[in-house]
Amino acid sequence: MAKKERLIVVGGVAAGMSAAAKARRVNPDMEIIVYEKSGYISYGACGFPYYIKGDVADIEALLARTPAQMAEQGVVAHTRHEVQAIDAGRRIAAIYDHNTGRKRFEPWDKLILAAGASVSRPPIPGINLNGIFSLRTVEDALAIRHWLEEMQPRHGVIVGGGYIGLEMAEALAAHGVAVTIVDAADQLMSSLDVEIAGLIQAELEAEGVTIRLGEMVRSFIGERLVTDITQRVTALVMGQGGGSLDNRFRVREVVTDKQSYPADIVIFGVGSRPNVVLAQQAGVKLGQTWAVAVDARQRTNIPNIWAAGAVAEAFHRVLGQPIYFPLAQVASKQGRVAAVNAAGGRASFAGTVGTAVVKTFDLEVAQTGLSEKAARGQDWAVDSVTIKASSRAHYMPGQATIHLKLVFDQNTQRVLGAQMIGKDGVAQRINIIAAALQAEWTIPDLAALDLAYAPPFAPVWDPVLVAANVANRD
Amino acid sequence: MAKKERLIVVGGVAAGMSAAAKARRVNPDMEIIVYEKSGYISYGACGFPYYIKGDVADIEALLARTPAQMAEQGVVAHTRHEVQAIDAGRRIAAIYDHNTGRKRFEPWDKLILAAGASVSRPPIPGINLNGIFSLRTVEDALAIRHWLEEMQPRHGVIVGGGYIGLEMAEALAAHGVAVTIVDAADQLMSSLDVEIAGLIQAELEAEGVTIRLGEMVRSFIGERLVTDITQRVTALVMGQGGGSLDNRFRVREVVTDKQSYPADIVIFGVGSRPNVVLAQQAGVKLGQTWAVAVDARQRTNIPNIWAAGAVAEAFHRVLGQPIYFPLAQVASKQGRVAAVNAAGGRASFAGTVGTAVVKTFDLEVAQTGLSEKAARGQDWAVDSVTIKASSRAHYMPGQATIHLKLVFDQNTQRVLGAQMIGKDGVAQRINIIAAALQAEWTIPDLAALDLAYAPPFAPVWDPVLVAANVANRD
Repeated sequence: MAKKERLIVVGGVAAGMSAAAKARRVNPDMEIIVYEKSGYISYGACGFPYYIKGDVADIEALLARTPAQMAEQGVVAHTRHEVQAIDAGRRIAAIYDHNTGRKRFEPWDKLILAAGASVSRPPIPGINLNGIFSLRTVEDALAIRHWLEEMQPRHGVIVGGGYIGLEMAEALAAHGVAVTIVDAADQLMSSLDVEIAGLIQAELEAEGVTIRLGEMVRSFIGERLVTDITQRVTALVMGQGGGSLDNRFRVREVVTDKQSYPADIVIFGVGSRPNVVLAQQAGVKLGQTWAVAVDARQRTNIPNIWAAGAVAEAFHRVLGQPIYFPLAQVASKQGRVAAVNAAGGRASFAGTVGTAVVKTFDLEVAQTGLSEKAARGQDWAVDSVTIKASSRAHYMPGQATIHLKLVFDQNTQRVLGAQMIGKDGVAQRINIIAAALQAEWTIPDLAALDLAYAPPFAPVWDPVLVAANVANRD
Repeated sequence: MAKKERLIVVGGVAAGMSAAAKARRVNPDMEIIVYEKSGYISYGACGFPYYIKGDVADIEALLARTPAQMAEQGVVAHTRHEVQAIDAGRRIAAIYDHNTGRKRFEPWDKLILAAGASVSRPPIPGINLNGIFSLRTVEDALAIRHWLEEMQPRHGVIVGGGYIGLEMAEALAAHGVAVTIVDAADQLMSSLDVEIAGLIQAELEAEGVTIRLGEMVRSFIGERLVTDITQRVTALVMGQGGGSLDNRFRVREVVTDKQSYPADIVIFGVGSRPNVVLAQQAGVKLGQTWAVAVDARQRTNIPNIWAAGAVAEAFHRVLGQPIYFPLAQVASKQGRVAAVNAAGGRASFAGTVGTAVVKTFDLEVAQTGLSEKAARGQDWAVDSVTIKASSRAHYMPGQATIHLKLVFDQNTQRVLGAQMIGKDGVAQRINIIAAALQAEWTIPDLAALDLAYAPPFAPVWDPVLVAANVANRD
């Protein structure tokens, strides 16, 4: 009997677990082994802010599949196992087992890189103080919630006003923390146009959040941990600080280039980068974005090595070039595609159009395609309209104003992107325009859409149609 | 100076007012006169169930524009004016003024038929008893809410389990009425496939609604009105009953071919038909559906007469033929198209894909394109998948199960339609598939969609993608 083909999957979260499960279904004969560096596989990292906030009571709810469940499907998943080196020529991987401290070598036939991204903390004085967190792993989420519950911090500083920053502002505020967001840029959510970001800022300020833009964090000032309670928490957060001297101290103040803020909790919402060291060591090429370059079949430059998820680039259908877009829904799709190809089938990833949504307090913020500033960097004759419209019939309870900015090309009328914010009906509506982008529609195509109408859900003229009509000068 | 061109618009609700307002913007020089038979123009008829329920406090909220406001825009709108005859050759219309009882003749250059639909009550014994209502006009809505508030009915029968029936079940139940829906068909919502309709039925029954299918109403039994309160209400509903002998009596019981039901309020949710008598008299041709036949520019067979809204047919993009689909969003679009053409411009209606949504209690019921049974009547090799998926990340508060049936052609994989029900996130999600139908997408196109993901709004694999993957055997 021939020896079974072996697939090694490096990383067991979104792309990795999607890949392992799909490969199992496509090819029942393959041996499939997943190595995950953290202590958990198959977790819903996007749910962490809601676990921390308290909307989700137990972390277990975010763990979709355990290693035991994967074993039942015939997938071996090792946690706290780090793939430290890959020999692409001899097809051997060096594995470090963090449980035992032992290293071993494993042969492979096919390999999927799904090592994700991690937050690299900048070398700022005081960065390793207790109470300063980033948010990537289950361990991070557990530590933040414990810190909130045990230390009951009163002042929080969030560094970075992107997705994580906005979600964590809501989560901290729910624990009674007075939140300040500090961002070096001159707007929140850098992927959005500045006037849309300004609307988000106004809403956050109305919720009591302080926003400081154009400020750089220069240092963190700590104080000694004193109480019994803090001793317990200190033990818990040891894993984050890394055992440095700072472990006996906790953060008290954040100093920027302009002023300083009291802070007994700090969240780092910036600096997420693809984990490409392993790929580079193995000879896998990176793209322009410094993530792993892949083709539509998720192939890297090395035969029998595929890459998927936040370690890799994703092709942007509107831009016509790869971008770095490390979101879970893209990772899951890419993981499946990589798996089908690695398991002997044939599949392609159709690309992203850059669709994303985030909730902060009651506000829904969504985007697809290109912002006006992103489009202006390209060859289009960029035009845009911004409209305000009601999310439901104006007389219905629960209706709220939707701000919708539609970006399009003046010459061809092609739809290039949309940004939408409001407190009702935004998250799903952006998908209509995501479909329009995939179909390469013009503004008249969008205006022709036959959208569902009933007073509890939409006005007769849906905001999407209002925007299309205005763009149509109609 | 040349005499101004005159546009007469017959009907001042969805299509009519959309047409009048658009014609004004396109052509500032035209004289525009609207004749509306009822006492109100520009009302949101789809909001009536929510006024009756009490979600909307005042009927004024449903009146978008008054004749005085239209006058400011340079549109003359006459209420309680009925266009009784049209002479297409001499371009004269005979107008009956219900306020004065006088008839007059008005010349016109262009004419838009937007006379809508009305409910024709079947000749059933007792049909004119007080307490039996249909729901088309502001007067109907006022009468029903007054009856509910003044008479405090305990038992309600709704005849017809379509959109109006489902919405009114919720509205009556909110007033403490025990509701029975009687329908001659063997399912609710005849536009849906039977198993989807069955899910709605189960939900209504869980809400305490009694559903009786396959039953025909044979007669209504009345009793004499006695109290002072009822005298007031009697006066109010005189307009409905039409001054017959029945006016001194109110409904007490509904008798079907199978049994009888106590009822102190009855809603007729069936029998809506286009108001085509005027069109026929004028020589305007009807289509196969017995509504006015129009081309893409909303032209009728007679030069200078256009038709729009519930009086007319609408082209179905998936079927490739006209259907009767009297919904407000279609009426508004057709009205604009008719107006542009009547005002000297050029516009076309792109057609409908049959998108509709209705809310009943907490359930959202949505549809676009063809049901399986409708598709089977055509040339396709019809296939379908039905999936259950979560509306949000499974661990998030507010998540609910969505049932999604996707209908497609086996040979070409072309998407033909979808039906979706659930208590969260249905109404906007159907629009994604409406876009797919307009783009004439296949199942793989749909599976490629880049949909927004965040735990409060969607799972990583959106229900639409789950259905597409299952249909893809993927």
